[in-house]
Amino acid sequence: MKQRIAILGASGYTGAELIRLLLPHPHAEIVTLTADSQAGKSMREVYPHLDCAGLPNLIPLSAVDYHGIDVVFCCLPHGTTQQVIAEIPRHVKVIDLSADFRLADTDAYAQWYGHAHFAPELQKEAVYGLTELNRNKIKNARLVANPGCYPTSAQLPLMPLLKEKLIEADNIIIDAKSGMTGAGRAAKQTVLFTEINEGVDAYSISAHRHAPEIEQGLTLAYGKQVIVNFTPHHMPMNRGILSTIYVSLAKGKRPEDLVACLANAYQNEYFVRLTAKGVAPATHMVRGTNVCLIGVFADRLPGRAILVSVMDNLVKGASGQAVQNMNLMCGFPEKTALEQTALFP
Amino acid sequence: MKQRIAILGASGYTGAELIRLLLPHPHAEIVTLTADSQAGKSMREVYPHLDCAGLPNLIPLSAVDYHGIDVVFCCLPHGTTQQVIAEIPRHVKVIDLSADFRLADTDAYAQWYGHAHFAPELQKEAVYGLTELNRNKIKNARLVANPGCYPTSAQLPLMPLLKEKLIEADNIIIDAKSGMTGAGRAAKQTVLFTEINEGVDAYSISAHRHAPEIEQGLTLAYGKQVIVNFTPHHMPMNRGILSTIYVSLAKGKRPEDLVACLANAYQNEYFVRLTAKGVAPATHMVRGTNVCLIGVFADRLPGRAILVSVMDNLVKGASGQAVQNMNLMCGFPEKTALEQTALFP
Amino acid sequence: MKQRIAILGASGYTGAELIRLLLPHPHAEIVTLTADSQAGKSMREVYPHLDCAGLPNLIPLSAVDYHGIDVVFCCLPHGTTQQVIAEIPRHVKVIDLSADFRLADTDAYAQWYGHAHFAPELQKEAVYGLTELNRNKIKNARLVANPGCYPTSAQLPLMPLLKEKLIEADNIIIDAKSGMTGAGRAAKQTVLFTEINEGVDAYSISAHRHAPEIEQGLTLAYGKQVIVNFTPHHMPMNRGILSTIYVSLAKGKRPEDLVACLANAYQNEYFVRLTAKGVAPATHMVRGTNVCLIGVFADRLPGRAILVSVMDNLVKGASGQAVQNMNLMCGFPEKTALEQTALFP
Amino acid sequence: MKQRIAILGASGYTGAELIRLLLPHPHAEIVTLTADSQAGKSMREVYPHLDCAGLPNLIPLSAVDYHGIDVVFCCLPHGTTQQVIAEIPRHVKVIDLSADFRLADTDAYAQWYGHAHFAPELQKEAVYGLTELNRNKIKNARLVANPGCYPTSAQLPLMPLLKEKLIEADNIIIDAKSGMTGAGRAAKQTVLFTEINEGVDAYSISAHRHAPEIEQGLTLAYGKQVIVNFTPHHMPMNRGILSTIYVSLAKGKRPEDLVACLANAYQNEYFVRLTAKGVAPATHMVRGTNVCLIGVFADRLPGRAILVSVMDNLVKGASGQAVQNMNLMCGFPEKTALEQTALFP
Repeated sequence: MKQRIAILGASGYTGAELIRLLLPHPHAEIVTLTADSQAGKSMREVYPHLDCAGLPNLIPLSAVDYHGIDVVFCCLPHGTTQQVIAEIPRHVKVIDLSADFRLADTDAYAQWYGHAHFAPELQKEAVYGLTELNRNKIKNARLVANPGCYPTSAQLPLMPLLKEKLIEADNIIIDAKSGMTGAGRAAKQTVLFTEINEGVDAYSISAHRHAPEIEQGLTLAYGKQVIVNFTPHHMPMNRGILSTIYVSLAKGKRPEDLVACLANAYQNEYFVRLTAKGVAPATHMVRGTNVCLIGVFADRLPGRAILVSVMDNLVKGASGQAVQNMNLMCGFPEKTALEQTALFP
Repeated sequence: MKQRIAILGASGYTGAELIRLLLPHPHAEIVTLTADSQAGKSMREVYPHLDCAGLPNLIPLSAVDYHGIDVVFCCLPHGTTQQVIAEIPRHVKVIDLSADFRLADTDAYAQWYGHAHFAPELQKEAVYGLTELNRNKIKNARLVANPGCYPTSAQLPLMPLLKEKLIEADNIIIDAKSGMTGAGRAAKQTVLFTEINEGVDAYSISAHRHAPEIEQGLTLAYGKQVIVNFTPHHMPMNRGILSTIYVSLAKGKRPEDLVACLANAYQNEYFVRLTAKGVAPATHMVRGTNVCLIGVFADRLPGRAILVSVMDNLVKGASGQAVQNMNLMCGFPEKTALEQTALFP
Repeated sequence: MKQRIAILGASGYTGAELIRLLLPHPHAEIVTLTADSQAGKSMREVYPHLDCAGLPNLIPLSAVDYHGIDVVFCCLPHGTTQQVIAEIPRHVKVIDLSADFRLADTDAYAQWYGHAHFAPELQKEAVYGLTELNRNKIKNARLVANPGCYPTSAQLPLMPLLKEKLIEADNIIIDAKSGMTGAGRAAKQTVLFTEINEGVDAYSISAHRHAPEIEQGLTLAYGKQVIVNFTPHHMPMNRGILSTIYVSLAKGKRPEDLVACLANAYQNEYFVRLTAKGVAPATHMVRGTNVCLIGVFADRLPGRAILVSVMDNLVKGASGQAVQNMNLMCGFPEKTALEQTALFP
Repeated sequence: MKQRIAILGASGYTGAELIRLLLPHPHAEIVTLTADSQAGKSMREVYPHLDCAGLPNLIPLSAVDYHGIDVVFCCLPHGTTQQVIAEIPRHVKVIDLSADFRLADTDAYAQWYGHAHFAPELQKEAVYGLTELNRNKIKNARLVANPGCYPTSAQLPLMPLLKEKLIEADNIIIDAKSGMTGAGRAAKQTVLFTEINEGVDAYSISAHRHAPEIEQGLTLAYGKQVIVNFTPHHMPMNRGILSTIYVSLAKGKRPEDLVACLANAYQNEYFVRLTAKGVAPATHMVRGTNVCLIGVFADRLPGRAILVSVMDNLVKGASGQAVQNMNLMCGFPEKTALEQTALFP
């Protein structure tokens, strides 16, 4: 029997991407779509490219009947999600794509998001959904906090290296470049076509909310508090994150040791891969796919190395990883509905 | 049993797109890929986004053994294809994505392509592969001439209207806008990123080779010689063709009659659709899909109407329609492997 | 002595472009900049690229003291402008970049803009600012209605041809492609980077407000009512308009006659030029300049021709033509501050 | 009297940009343009946007008569330049935009460029043209080696800090993002529109030839050998370089000390500026201008800071700095012809 799916907040980009991925899923049926500001419309009115048979119309969040629902994907804005999820009946599996349950430490949440956590009890139950590195917990979770896009691109290459103490933990620099879908679909002057096209900039320097999320994962892997430099940049493109990560090698370690560690850590993974020696990852290689591709390079600076990871921020960085987690939580093969070939050019 | 597929000229964009579409095809197996200049390489060396298990390495055209092959997709340059196909054994079905067999009249070919046709006998056998409008012949064809991208976008909206004499035949203006994948992957200064980005231009005005192909189809539908204005433009984007077509209504006809005619002509079609009344087609709506979307609009000029069609030039305009034709020729359901949701944003 | 300039509504793109053009103007001094929603800020806070010495801070419109001002450029939204200009003292020359005074017929205004004209008396005084074709009236005007971007690109090639009766007046089709700066800087979902990048679409089909403005000019040139097809399209680029215009030749006329007519009409013009025979105009050729470039081409359809015009919508299509008009109105050489070389690539 | 200018290799992007900048220069007259492969053509055939009165046609390099020339800008490919310049008569001032004379150490040249230097004697005479930091030597130079684009963007923020020992020298990481004009106008598959659009990648990791040029300048400033990490990235845009530079503060130093140092170093400079506190530089702010804009930010990592510099790679990174150097060498005010306002949007 198919899992009956609800997507809360289906009018944003992660909601639309979930629909793209779930439509051909053999074990999933989208039965409910919500969007308060667009309630009453069909999806094709909101997203004309989703002119698909069988999609329900958008309804208000308050009109959702959870009795007929097995899995909820929650794509609501940060801050409003905690209370919504707190009221979802416990028979429903929940995958939350907002940041609301990503930080296990509710004090850290309060510090970075500017208000006390609204559902601290639920936070204890939430499982962090970085699939490859938290698979066993996700399998049995009821509430999964789906990782942020930047944190996924940074944690996948770094966590195995920190766990094995192959790199120093006090000197990690993450220079991240993201396509503009990361900024969402809300109308803002700063992300108009004319303001982004033909230019690049750094933003939220030393102040982006994904920094504590990255640090949480790295700290867990390393066993001691890790602080990182995380500097995001806007790119004039729609999809893709490229993170260039600069690390110091632990004493006596060489770049080849990093390659070996990552190759080992991900040897059985379909969605996390290393490039061939000398091949620099490009976002084109993974556009539209759930794959994170990692390259390791020697640095001219002695004792240092460079990691480059690429992925599609809307897929492995959001909706694809969410489906991957759903597959795990529901006992489906993890790759189900996630074997797309990249769309290039 | 799966059809064993060879793609000749697999290092171009249409070849790569065929691979994207055929990889998940349940009844197809890619067994041979050729590319003379890249022979010996793996596909992932030529297209890193095609880092897929099971793809054969590229071989020279001369090394193809046709005994183990059921279907050939020919993606070779215009002009070189005729002789190649002439030598393919007759047990092999051939779908040619070049222009070499599209013009039934070999004199017209000679005029537009600058040399006598190299395989005039074979030309007689070739079936024009505009699937929706030539389905019965394609089903039984051995050699299909897959239509050009612009001609597909123009013929689909115009042919039913001409057949029904709803529009005048002497006054058709096709203003077409194409993404740059239409120009192929060969290195040319005129299509460098820097030369295309942040600009648009008209090109090959009154001289594009797709004009006679369009006219051939329209003439066939109308029953008398049709000449058109066809003016193509370069767009700073990768995928998509939007054709804005300006027509004179036949006496007493209204735009609504055009809508009714097209709705009727395509009522059972999955890949050719009309937009809802008042909705202007955008290339975003069909990116990555095999769909051609058509809108009909009244003109301010009395007695005229405007047709807008959009499609992905690499899919319905090339490799997708080729797979659609293969499905027909092999007796598979026509939609097999072609039900992608558009990739947006 | 320098003309003292005020720019009303300086926080939009045409305001910013006026500043770029006027800063090096030897006879102009920007003394007042208004922007109600940004009042109190410096220009570099609103436009960091305008980090220029000597620019006044933004003030509210209500705070403008017109005693010290010689010339006002009005860049306010359509509809709000009429009343603002009605209250400007008569010693001030006014160049209005909105649509508020472009339609001489206030009934037509009411029909297209949805409300009665707020300053019908002032409308009688307004002079339409298509410089090359209305130079003598502009020289002595107090209030100039600066043309719209699309209308400039359409009228410059068409008006001389209609005046000389070289083309038919009942069959003019204007397929226009515009960069996104034409949509302004206000935050709207439809013009987000992610919604525009990598796609094209037609919009406001048969319903764009620039149609009556174009028709007004063509009617004037032709001496009888002219109705046109005008179909605008969004392009994924910032600057530039390319209009492809399809015309029927008057009986016995040839494309060469059109070339001769336009060459003659613009033989002494610096800002309106014809391309060399066979060279298709591209928006790249004029980016950042006040030039409109026109090409004339034979059509495959007998008795027809194709005109292609390109210009920078923010320069010749808005702020550049406004400065050109100011130069005329103030008795400066018309080219003053407008001899930029195009920025390419 | 005007300086008579020759541009050798005028068909590349730096040549075209020199023409844009020199055309309005009151003390320069372009008398000779060379381009071997395009010899005989007019500039407007090669660059239609340069449809300017008075430009000479392109001639072969061998046809240049240096008797009537005062200043040569050499825009020839790396490697071929040394011998060309060696034969230019000594009355001619030469500004070389290639890399051929940038590395003072001819052994380093041989190592990075793969062949022995062809004009080692001339190398001794060459002055490195980083204007703000080498002004006195440039004033009296006959041969100036104009800096690379990346090296300019890295050295301007770093050299004053290293000279004052405010940052550590063994830990400098330069993550640079460049527009595609940096790759030149030669036809290469890797820089086709379709290959670059909608994607980013890192390239030449730890192997880019600009690394030794950067290190040469930093070593000079610091007084001891400096090695850096330099990692360039391709951006889907035409113009602009953004360098995000990660540095360790010297003991006891704070980010504010870096701000103070740079503010002091560049207090009298027109072309090198700091952003206001908290404002992140964006390439849009300087597009088309000769300005390098620098921002300094605290890092979350204790004891570290982040520098961001932006400039237009074709202007301050190439042709603009070349004109700035010419102004110095010829005794003109340094800003002459270089006070453009940025072209945004």
